[in-house]
Amino acid sequence: MRYAVIGTGAIGGYYGCKLARSGQELHFLLRSDYEYVKTNGLQVDSCDGSFHIDRVNAYDNTADMPPCDVVMVCLKSVNNGKLKEMLPPLLHPGTLVLLIQNGIGVEEDVQRDFPDVQLAAGLAFICSSKTEPGVVSHQCYGSINLANYSCRDEQLFQAVVDEFRQAGIQTGVVEYQEARWKKAVWNMPFNGMTVALNTRTDLLLKNPATRQLIRDLMMEVVGAARHLGVKGVDEAFVEKMISMTDEMTPYSPSMKLDFDFHRRMEIHYLYTRPIEIARQAGFPMPKLEMLEAELKFLEVRGEK
Amino acid sequence: MRYAVIGTGAIGGYYGCKLARSGQELHFLLRSDYEYVKTNGLQVDSCDGSFHIDRVNAYDNTADMPPCDVVMVCLKSVNNGKLKEMLPPLLHPGTLVLLIQNGIGVEEDVQRDFPDVQLAAGLAFICSSKTEPGVVSHQCYGSINLANYSCRDEQLFQAVVDEFRQAGIQTGVVEYQEARWKKAVWNMPFNGMTVALNTRTDLLLKNPATRQLIRDLMMEVVGAARHLGVKGVDEAFVEKMISMTDEMTPYSPSMKLDFDFHRRMEIHYLYTRPIEIARQAGFPMPKLEMLEAELKFLEVRGEK
Repeated sequence: MRYAVIGTGAIGGYYGCKLARSGQELHFLLRSDYEYVKTNGLQVDSCDGSFHIDRVNAYDNTADMPPCDVVMVCLKSVNNGKLKEMLPPLLHPGTLVLLIQNGIGVEEDVQRDFPDVQLAAGLAFICSSKTEPGVVSHQCYGSINLANYSCRDEQLFQAVVDEFRQAGIQTGVVEYQEARWKKAVWNMPFNGMTVALNTRTDLLLKNPATRQLIRDLMMEVVGAARHLGVKGVDEAFVEKMISMTDEMTPYSPSMKLDFDFHRRMEIHYLYTRPIEIARQAGFPMPKLEMLEAELKFLEVRGEK
Repeated sequence: MRYAVIGTGAIGGYYGCKLARSGQELHFLLRSDYEYVKTNGLQVDSCDGSFHIDRVNAYDNTADMPPCDVVMVCLKSVNNGKLKEMLPPLLHPGTLVLLIQNGIGVEEDVQRDFPDVQLAAGLAFICSSKTEPGVVSHQCYGSINLANYSCRDEQLFQAVVDEFRQAGIQTGVVEYQEARWKKAVWNMPFNGMTVALNTRTDLLLKNPATRQLIRDLMMEVVGAARHLGVKGVDEAFVEKMISMTDEMTPYSPSMKLDFDFHRRMEIHYLYTRPIEIARQAGFPMPKLEMLEAELKFLEVRGEK
């Protein structure tokens, strides 16, 4: 199939190159790296074996790109406002748009702007970064879970899963709401708290006061999910996430890296939207609301 | 009457010297300044007129002090654990202990250790600091509100009020619960938030997200007070406190100063106890609970 990658960074670059290497037709949208990649191709330095894509279909504008069967949106969600303008040239009547992004509410908002487009969510479990122009550095993990949001064409969705697997990507198929809310159980407490207290995951769990706070924040996510009728997000999952984090090497979540490097933080889809969705369903999240306010305060101060 | 001052700092030094100047018999407990003050007396540099107390009854141990009619406790509440040992030598059967301290629950806890002692609360509205040994610098304000907690001797309580007024201290008489909870409406949000976000009162009110958060935190205090049957603490008072703070010059609350100078913060009586008291009455304060946890995390990191 023909794939587009919107946002050729640590995530889009990695999965796009894996698919390209396995023989799929890929079209990459780039920004600052455009000239470099057009000439030199893309390099993936990977723990699973490095490789290079010599001839890359590189673009600096979606208007120049062909309609694709699958559009992988790998932008940071702070840029989703641009999709309204960026997506149309890439769409044909059967296109599947795969949103490989953080947070809750991204699919809902894209669907509002494109009511007929078929959407799926991609939840990536990967440590990777873009270290220099045209180079993706893949440190570990690399699996992805795909969840159908509004794809009517079941065969297309399955074909994407199959082609991801053929490309050597460990690919799971998960229920959309459960997957997004489960990820939020970890993401909402740790992303924000490492920024608010300028610290690391291990130190938050070491202090008894913040260990309890992390648990309280996770339970707010669980409460919201339960209130929304989402299955499989419960107290046992909270304990599992805490144990897992206890065993992780100290870690800076993506929002902490964004904050430290004075990039915009994904406050909207990691906090504002899920808090709004829960509130509309009648479930307040007071502590996460407070964290959202703290982040909005720190964001302004952190701007370069 | 015969007064003792336990904790001769910015507060105890100021009110004690005012009383001494007006002719009352004062006995001051000192720590690091003891030798200096015994020899040189106490100096008050004041916006209302500076003055010096030449001969000061100075002590470095309450065991050497005489029983007094009024014991003014002006320690930071983090040191209240020492009162059990410090107070007894100062008490006679009719002594009034006046706790000029921040927070909620101090009287309750002292009363538990001294069931028969008569207690009153002092709420000081003053900007003062101890700038060097034996010198209190009084920048502005200076009034105090006194509230009866468990003083059976109405005449004694009134006599203290009268003598404070004779000493030129603007002195109000207020209802205990209302006074403590009203002060908490301002204290609980601003003390902690200026530490948690390392900022100032004016910047917290300038950002729309934290302005709303400050209001939410104040409303938690109002909700708790209302739940406890305390009168006069309502939404109108919250608006009054916010307007007042809008008009104040940017200000670092006492907890922010403590944090910046690596001194212990009064987390226990400003957060832990009131949150506990509200929870026991069936009213949770989730956002203040979160702030308490953040402060406990920062306290450990801030220790020298």
